[in-house]
Amino acid sequence: MRFVVIGGDAAGMSAASKAKRNNPDLEVIVLEQSEDVSYSACGMPYNIADPDREMNDLVVRTAAVFRGKQGIDLRTGHKVDRIDRQNKTVSGTDAHSNRFQIAYDKLLIATGSRPKMLPIPGIDLPGVKVLRSLEDGRRIKSYIDSHNVRSAVIIGGGYIGLEMVEALCERGMHVQLVEIRDSFLPWLPKAMDDLIRTELETHEVKVKLETSVTRIESHHDRLKIFYSDSETVVDLVVLAVGVVPNSELAADAGLVLGPGFSIAVDRYLRTSDPDIYAVGDCADAFHQVTGQRVWIPLALRANRGGWAVADNITGRASDIPDIVGTAVFKVLDLEVARTGLSFEEALNAGFDPVENIIQSSSRAHAHPGATTIHVHLVADKKTGRLLGASMIGKEGAAHRINALAVALHASMTVREFFGCDLAYAPPFSPVWDPMLTAANQLLKKL
Amino acid sequence: MRFVVIGGDAAGMSAASKAKRNNPDLEVIVLEQSEDVSYSACGMPYNIADPDREMNDLVVRTAAVFRGKQGIDLRTGHKVDRIDRQNKTVSGTDAHSNRFQIAYDKLLIATGSRPKMLPIPGIDLPGVKVLRSLEDGRRIKSYIDSHNVRSAVIIGGGYIGLEMVEALCERGMHVQLVEIRDSFLPWLPKAMDDLIRTELETHEVKVKLETSVTRIESHHDRLKIFYSDSETVVDLVVLAVGVVPNSELAADAGLVLGPGFSIAVDRYLRTSDPDIYAVGDCADAFHQVTGQRVWIPLALRANRGGWAVADNITGRASDIPDIVGTAVFKVLDLEVARTGLSFEEALNAGFDPVENIIQSSSRAHAHPGATTIHVHLVADKKTGRLLGASMIGKEGAAHRINALAVALHASMTVREFFGCDLAYAPPFSPVWDPMLTAANQLLKKL
Repeated sequence: MRFVVIGGDAAGMSAASKAKRNNPDLEVIVLEQSEDVSYSACGMPYNIADPDREMNDLVVRTAAVFRGKQGIDLRTGHKVDRIDRQNKTVSGTDAHSNRFQIAYDKLLIATGSRPKMLPIPGIDLPGVKVLRSLEDGRRIKSYIDSHNVRSAVIIGGGYIGLEMVEALCERGMHVQLVEIRDSFLPWLPKAMDDLIRTELETHEVKVKLETSVTRIESHHDRLKIFYSDSETVVDLVVLAVGVVPNSELAADAGLVLGPGFSIAVDRYLRTSDPDIYAVGDCADAFHQVTGQRVWIPLALRANRGGWAVADNITGRASDIPDIVGTAVFKVLDLEVARTGLSFEEALNAGFDPVENIIQSSSRAHAHPGATTIHVHLVADKKTGRLLGASMIGKEGAAHRINALAVALHASMTVREFFGCDLAYAPPFSPVWDPMLTAANQLLKKL
Repeated sequence: MRFVVIGGDAAGMSAASKAKRNNPDLEVIVLEQSEDVSYSACGMPYNIADPDREMNDLVVRTAAVFRGKQGIDLRTGHKVDRIDRQNKTVSGTDAHSNRFQIAYDKLLIATGSRPKMLPIPGIDLPGVKVLRSLEDGRRIKSYIDSHNVRSAVIIGGGYIGLEMVEALCERGMHVQLVEIRDSFLPWLPKAMDDLIRTELETHEVKVKLETSVTRIESHHDRLKIFYSDSETVVDLVVLAVGVVPNSELAADAGLVLGPGFSIAVDRYLRTSDPDIYAVGDCADAFHQVTGQRVWIPLALRANRGGWAVADNITGRASDIPDIVGTAVFKVLDLEVARTGLSFEEALNAGFDPVENIIQSSSRAHAHPGATTIHVHLVADKKTGRLLGASMIGKEGAAHRINALAVALHASMTVREFFGCDLAYAPPFSPVWDPMLTAANQLLKKL
């Protein structure tokens, strides 16, 4: 049997490797359009922050390892442009512009996502970069060196934009962040989102909210950015206004799409064609809290999904748990984390949500180094069920969120969560962990 | 109605305060034998570590606040020595050696625990200290100053002993730790326990395991310690060989006792006398994983229990959730955490336990600052249920344990826990959080 995988990043390569481990006789062909496979995409901002590190440090396994020891027929430089479901073939163009066509028994679409572009003049200038592939990372890093970049505008205030702000601040640059909305993270309550702005400004990042970029012009080897209200000249622009799933192949083949034009899959990662699977940033998922389809492209799901597809096509039927959308990132000295639903998401999903925000201490109140941690919880008034949480603080938010994620998986009520016997020692928490304090306060609204 | 509370520490004062908040007309009398109420006992080692801090910084609320604004009849210097259940009175001696007798409608025993003593000659010398009450803390601190203490022996390698090692190292002392067993924490697998020894020795602490202290002698204003195999002279000895519940009052009154001579209580914190409650370090609890009675004296339970008693005596029947025994402490640069059952505890409780230990990285593998984290999981072979966990590492163990604690409260199987959507970002975790890696490895044994 032949298993063909389109896309050689986290999802595709975990599927290919595990399929081969499960069944060494299986023929596994991976078609990857770039020359890079299996790297830590999320590590790129941190790598860019450090001029002494090679971008290739982020490669987890090289193509040679996959081809050699693992026995995977990995074909880089192979761009698939068509899936023929009738004849069960994929076809495309290789690095030498030759056409290829390959038959499959089982197919996995693991094409990931790509950065959204802005339809403005100058977006294609050489100094305007996106960050998605390892090659994008190399381009940014070499541009910084070759153009002696001292200043940058980041367009977009989501995870990647904020991580890139930190990375370029670490490089000692003057950084501006421009965001068209009036906040960074739409799921974060405004009062908590404002802390991000304060953090950025403390680090001398110039923040422009409710501002759009109307065009970019070349300006003596530099870039002139035209904001809706002013203009500025910098050395580099990084565009980070979100990502879109690479689902065109699937759509053209007539597969059913899910939210945000992602590829709809069932809990076995099957698309609407039983011989075609999809996993990773291009595919959707079921949300544990709502039971509804969502598109939340994150790394753990890609890896987990890759393994599950491998099991499924090698006869070990493996359904995949629903997600709760747990995410965390760091921006300068702040940890920002979420899991489950925001208030608005809960409302849209038909719940009767209540929410609260508490401030507590990251350590015992009298303990040196204690900082303020902000905990936001959302619950359903009808059932008392916990629906979601977000957290922000200088320490302890990133790991704390996992306790709430587990509570969501267990469909706990706020009261049940409040009853949990959490850890206490002065260097790590008050006696009542901030999450318990938040739950206790929220109980009063239920 | 009159509510009498014996003991004015965490459990007693939370009960007294909340009872008064619930019902301002309630007469609330607290009888505390010392002069200190409501302080952070767990903060004492950290306070001792810092010569510039006052021990009184650990006081959360003063007696004056309880007496004034809160309207509690708080009587310090009042030592209760008898409970007369027939006549519903308590009696004892006040600070002026006068006898008192007080009638109660509802009584709470919140007498806490006291350090175990060693029956060896010299244990009562002035330089031999225990750490339990705030007064103990003051004594240690003033002894360090008045005797220019430069060296110390800690007897006992549990939480408090290890925290005191850290505190005295911070003060620049030469510290020896002596422990009669061959390990520090009986619930920690030996391979992980050994990391504590290495950590201590890296910080030049002299560790003597499987060693007993046979006597202590005064030696020119210093102390001579006789070990089973050698002797040493130091300035200070801290005895930290465990605690015992102060349950004698309850026992003398004929109340039923639980494990470890703690006072047996039901899920409403009632003792075997329906008008007498017990809570805090003197009382037992039900363990969520085994359903059995256990005595695990920890601060969160004391606070939670105090609130529940207040609700119960003011007509808001409130049962209290079972515990999972989550605990964490820091020793030098190590975080050590546990929740649920150890392998041996699981065996003793009638499970068919399997366990494993994995090593992973506290951050993404390529991320600067990543350190090794060790995760130990215990599960039941018959049901696949997660039974317990322990963790040790330089970062991320203290907060990670809470995710596993919540999983235990939810009676999750290892497979269900493995399915949880935990947070990932390179500064905080590998894509597969070490807890998920541990769960995945343990699944192979189930």
